[in-house]
Amino acid sequence: MTGIRNTRIVLANRPEGRPQPSDFRTEEVMLDEPAEGQVLLETLYLSLDPYMRGRMDAGPSYADPVELGDVMVGGTVSRVARSRHPDWTEGDLVLSGAGWQTHVISDGKGLRRLDADAAPPSTALHVLGMTGFTAYAGLLTIGKPKAGETVVVAAASGPVGSMVGQIARIKGARAVGIAGGPDKCAFVTDELGFDAVVDHRAPDFAEKLAQACPDGIDVYFENVGGPVWDAVQPLLNTFARVPVCGLVAHYNDRGDASGPDRLPAMMGTVLKKSLTVRGFIMSEFMHDQMEDFLKDTAGWIADGRIHWREDMVEGLENAPEAFIGMLEGMNFGKLIVKLADL
Amino acid sequence: MTGIRNTRIVLANRPEGRPQPSDFRTEEVMLDEPAEGQVLLETLYLSLDPYMRGRMDAGPSYADPVELGDVMVGGTVSRVARSRHPDWTEGDLVLSGAGWQTHVISDGKGLRRLDADAAPPSTALHVLGMTGFTAYAGLLTIGKPKAGETVVVAAASGPVGSMVGQIARIKGARAVGIAGGPDKCAFVTDELGFDAVVDHRAPDFAEKLAQACPDGIDVYFENVGGPVWDAVQPLLNTFARVPVCGLVAHYNDRGDASGPDRLPAMMGTVLKKSLTVRGFIMSEFMHDQMEDFLKDTAGWIADGRIHWREDMVEGLENAPEAFIGMLEGMNFGKLIVKLADL
Repeated sequence: MTGIRNTRIVLANRPEGRPQPSDFRTEEVMLDEPAEGQVLLETLYLSLDPYMRGRMDAGPSYADPVELGDVMVGGTVSRVARSRHPDWTEGDLVLSGAGWQTHVISDGKGLRRLDADAAPPSTALHVLGMTGFTAYAGLLTIGKPKAGETVVVAAASGPVGSMVGQIARIKGARAVGIAGGPDKCAFVTDELGFDAVVDHRAPDFAEKLAQACPDGIDVYFENVGGPVWDAVQPLLNTFARVPVCGLVAHYNDRGDASGPDRLPAMMGTVLKKSLTVRGFIMSEFMHDQMEDFLKDTAGWIADGRIHWREDMVEGLENAPEAFIGMLEGMNFGKLIVKLADL
Repeated sequence: MTGIRNTRIVLANRPEGRPQPSDFRTEEVMLDEPAEGQVLLETLYLSLDPYMRGRMDAGPSYADPVELGDVMVGGTVSRVARSRHPDWTEGDLVLSGAGWQTHVISDGKGLRRLDADAAPPSTALHVLGMTGFTAYAGLLTIGKPKAGETVVVAAASGPVGSMVGQIARIKGARAVGIAGGPDKCAFVTDELGFDAVVDHRAPDFAEKLAQACPDGIDVYFENVGGPVWDAVQPLLNTFARVPVCGLVAHYNDRGDASGPDRLPAMMGTVLKKSLTVRGFIMSEFMHDQMEDFLKDTAGWIADGRIHWREDMVEGLENAPEAFIGMLEGMNFGKLIVKLADL
């Protein structure tokens, strides 16, 4: 038996708060050759995303946790390296959920074929992938921005936030981004074309946000959690919508946060302003909207209306460090680990 | 000039926290006789409701505050005492917004004619009035209970809560009420027909609520605020809906509550369970749904499917004390002040 050498990163320990490099373990294992009806996939790009932090915990969440010793989950752009499946040929590029490893055997289920001529394959991990779809479905289905309304999104240089603002503008709304530091802020207005950006590190952040939203806020796309909410809350207009798709600022929280208790004020605002606060994960909308999303977004990319930035890290061995840094906002653009050349 | 003696209660001071009797002042003034196109209304019943506490504050809310020296607002069942208006005859009963006073001059706008044969006129202040409509619109438009789902409502013996549970049952859902003390709890199951009731004063309240909701909670109709939320939150099912129509527990709050900060946990639940939290005031839905509400509810009353309890206080002079007590849960049933006999 020949076999294929697979390098993989598994969950070694459940982190308490901030993950440590020692929570991950690298292993080498041999895979069998693909059987009839199977393909061998070689990972080219691995997507690193905040939701993975939730999967490292044992507690109930919207998806099952990664078990100790299991391969870390993750979306990948992979190449069919060997095929014994009638639908696939060696060299085909696919979107797969291979996780943090160099190779995987697949029966072909759930693979999405990628067309390298239509868009760079790595975009299937962001603007044409899960993060783009999260922005699209949450903004259009829950946020429902009308022309002339103001849409605010944090982590505006990130993969979800950047798409939220760009789609808001395509729909005729005003897009105001929140980002950390001058480089990211410049990117949000100059490259992504947001109408305004506010640096959350500024000492007068709340005041600056109010100045950037002279007509209040109609949609706040909540994808970070943390103190940004305190600046957003007083600016929300009556009937404002708050899609909640991520709270990366809290993913490392343990136990109760210290006071004061901000819940009564939040619920008071919900009542006084007739707010809609709606949590979601994109899988809720996949069946109904994925096709529209791929068509709309491919069109917008072709028209030059969607821009993006990738933060590409070389080598699977650097995935844990890059992931830990991302949870603290160290990356700039969609974080992707490159395992092999296209 | 003859004139009509009007006794009225005005806002004397803006309360800090809990209102005091000294925040109200009773005045006697003379009204002119109604002019052509006007009617003189005599107040029979005055509704006392938690929202009035919000109107006593100067800060922005969903409605303009009562100005210092102005008559306290409120819905009334009134009788046309003199008419110089073609549409109205002496003796007609109307739903009016006369406020805390014995008489008012009206041009007829906004009056709703009441049919004493169809239902007792005082029901226009609760099951066939604003509180009933609040329950109807919030439950059916935002809560959207499906047959077999579990609907939980606090202040279940009160005018909104009692209607929420009864309408939920009419729609085939399971109604679980929360109330304070054995008398109110017995009323909720024995008179209103809820499937279960839990006493929020019980030391093991959270555990009892969990036992009463073995399939979790699909709709939590939030009309009280305060610590009930902490018991409800862990029981909410994925895609649960939380209409928020009142937070009486916080109406007397001043400034920040002490910690721990419960907002991160709440937003985490919103995300993990794809919750919909939606504030509303019933005026949002009046145009579209008031006609259906009056028709549906009159039918349910005729069929004996809607029950209620009134807490009737005699005399306008007792309104301030009754109102203050209501904010602390002292009343049992819809609080109404009776000013004159039918």
